[in-house]
Amino acid sequence: MRPDPPQDADTVAEVGEFGLIRRVTAGRTQPPTTLLGPGDDAAVVAAPDGRVVASTDVLVENVHFRLDWSSPEHVGRKAAAVNLADIAAMGAMPTALLIGLACPADTPASVVDGITAGLWQEAAVAGAGVVGGDMVSSETLVISITALGDLNGLEPVVRSGAQVGDIVAVCGKLGWAAAGLAVLSRGFRSPVAVVGAQRSPEPPYPSGPEAAAAGATAMIDTSDGLLADLGHIATASGVGIDIRTELLEVHPRLIDVASALGADARHWVLTGGEDHALAATFPDAAAVPEDWQVIGAVRPGDGVTVDGRGYEKPPGWEHWR
Amino acid sequence: MRPDPPQDADTVAEVGEFGLIRRVTAGRTQPPTTLLGPGDDAAVVAAPDGRVVASTDVLVENVHFRLDWSSPEHVGRKAAAVNLADIAAMGAMPTALLIGLACPADTPASVVDGITAGLWQEAAVAGAGVVGGDMVSSETLVISITALGDLNGLEPVVRSGAQVGDIVAVCGKLGWAAAGLAVLSRGFRSPVAVVGAQRSPEPPYPSGPEAAAAGATAMIDTSDGLLADLGHIATASGVGIDIRTELLEVHPRLIDVASALGADARHWVLTGGEDHALAATFPDAAAVPEDWQVIGAVRPGDGVTVDGRGYEKPPGWEHWR
Repeated sequence: MRPDPPQDADTVAEVGEFGLIRRVTAGRTQPPTTLLGPGDDAAVVAAPDGRVVASTDVLVENVHFRLDWSSPEHVGRKAAAVNLADIAAMGAMPTALLIGLACPADTPASVVDGITAGLWQEAAVAGAGVVGGDMVSSETLVISITALGDLNGLEPVVRSGAQVGDIVAVCGKLGWAAAGLAVLSRGFRSPVAVVGAQRSPEPPYPSGPEAAAAGATAMIDTSDGLLADLGHIATASGVGIDIRTELLEVHPRLIDVASALGADARHWVLTGGEDHALAATFPDAAAVPEDWQVIGAVRPGDGVTVDGRGYEKPPGWEHWR
Repeated sequence: MRPDPPQDADTVAEVGEFGLIRRVTAGRTQPPTTLLGPGDDAAVVAAPDGRVVASTDVLVENVHFRLDWSSPEHVGRKAAAVNLADIAAMGAMPTALLIGLACPADTPASVVDGITAGLWQEAAVAGAGVVGGDMVSSETLVISITALGDLNGLEPVVRSGAQVGDIVAVCGKLGWAAAGLAVLSRGFRSPVAVVGAQRSPEPPYPSGPEAAAAGATAMIDTSDGLLADLGHIATASGVGIDIRTELLEVHPRLIDVASALGADARHWVLTGGEDHALAATFPDAAAVPEDWQVIGAVRPGDGVTVDGRGYEKPPGWEHWR
């Protein structure tokens, strides 16, 4: 499924582990939080809050990404983004990434260069450094990322804090990655906006700490899809959540794409994964920051309803199922 | 190469991602540094020093471990130990592990249970919690671990601080994992002491912070082999290191095993990897803590010599080569 590399390309086996590490780390700029970067037994990262927020995600070729659909740079950006979004969803500012990369000996070194370039780019967008990692040989290309973050004195916003009567709001793109997947699955490469959203998400990193400072009672990033992820908040908080479709923005671009493919744009918004937008609950409408969009409310009971009713289509994705 | 699982065993596909996560996390005890454990977007770990030490290692089935040589528990212990040793080698106390696990759909759930049990066991030995992770499907079994640690007010002990005239000392087992590998490679399963050392190392975790407090000028854990790892210190510090063989303890058990296999026990001690002992330089002999063994000195020049001469046999291991 991978495109043929150029015939003269160096493989990772030819460049070697230590050569690759040099290519990944040479000439990079670190943020001030990186007190000791790559090259020693471990990195040292500033944790001025006295607590560190940490999250790990693993991405596997042909499960989480395809190198015939996405450039290595996009894959790197996505691998970083899915993790950095988890940090933001706690209300923390990302500070650092650590990269574990396992790949076959015949992987072109340019693929590794591209993936790591994408990781550095996305880390820079979020304000984080790439502080360490490990590169090993494997039959399958696997990228494992750990992101660290700092809470800057705020309490972490967990999934279990939603209260009946809270307002539900979202920030960031919803349904775009699903639209991009639908386009790519049918063999198209455009429109670029939705295809790009599938290749690498654009989480609204600063909106996480912003929501925490505004008093958000629960927060999550939409990796599995809005309904599925709000379902995690509902379950953890012991409440129900109702989404009002008249409040739910469906971008005209998504409606265009859905209409061209005979698909349902609202279904993408409600259930599409991989956008890594933020969804949160707030004690009242006045607390919701300006760039967040109110979409519903927390109600007694359990589960997530849409306009007061259950939503029929399968809402999530589970590995090995 | 993997032994056949029992016919009635559940696979990870049957148990499912969320079921597996429940099995991994249910009923576990966390240390006080785990402020928020698994189950949310990210974990929160105490970092009282205001800095966090972080390291990632990736282990791949049939590259770093074999399930026909090691039980899943041993594999888990090893995966944790190699990372926790990196934290100790900076002079820090381990606080937390994050686990990325990628495995085929037909992997017996008991294998995942065993690996994670081993991770929890080794984390407990080091005083760390298992605070988060990710489980995904992959054609290859890959374990990616990130370890975090706290410096407790001490400066991190880097590889580049060795000074001419410093004393070189080690703490922990050396050559045991290599002896175990030699035994296993020849189809034997005993002696248990060396085979066990190959299956999972026993890094002397508290000796890292102890060396830092005693004024160690440089430190590393012996993952690639004593000469190779001291070579990393020599290169980073711009110095040479000389090992005196009359100071180098070669355990009688290793001499017995070597003699039975027609091998050289001292060669295992000098070059065997995967023991994750600690090697450090100290400003003088009086600074060396009691449980450390002086083995040589830092000299002008570069490289690592043994009794003043170069060591001929290939000293290290590099991936994809």
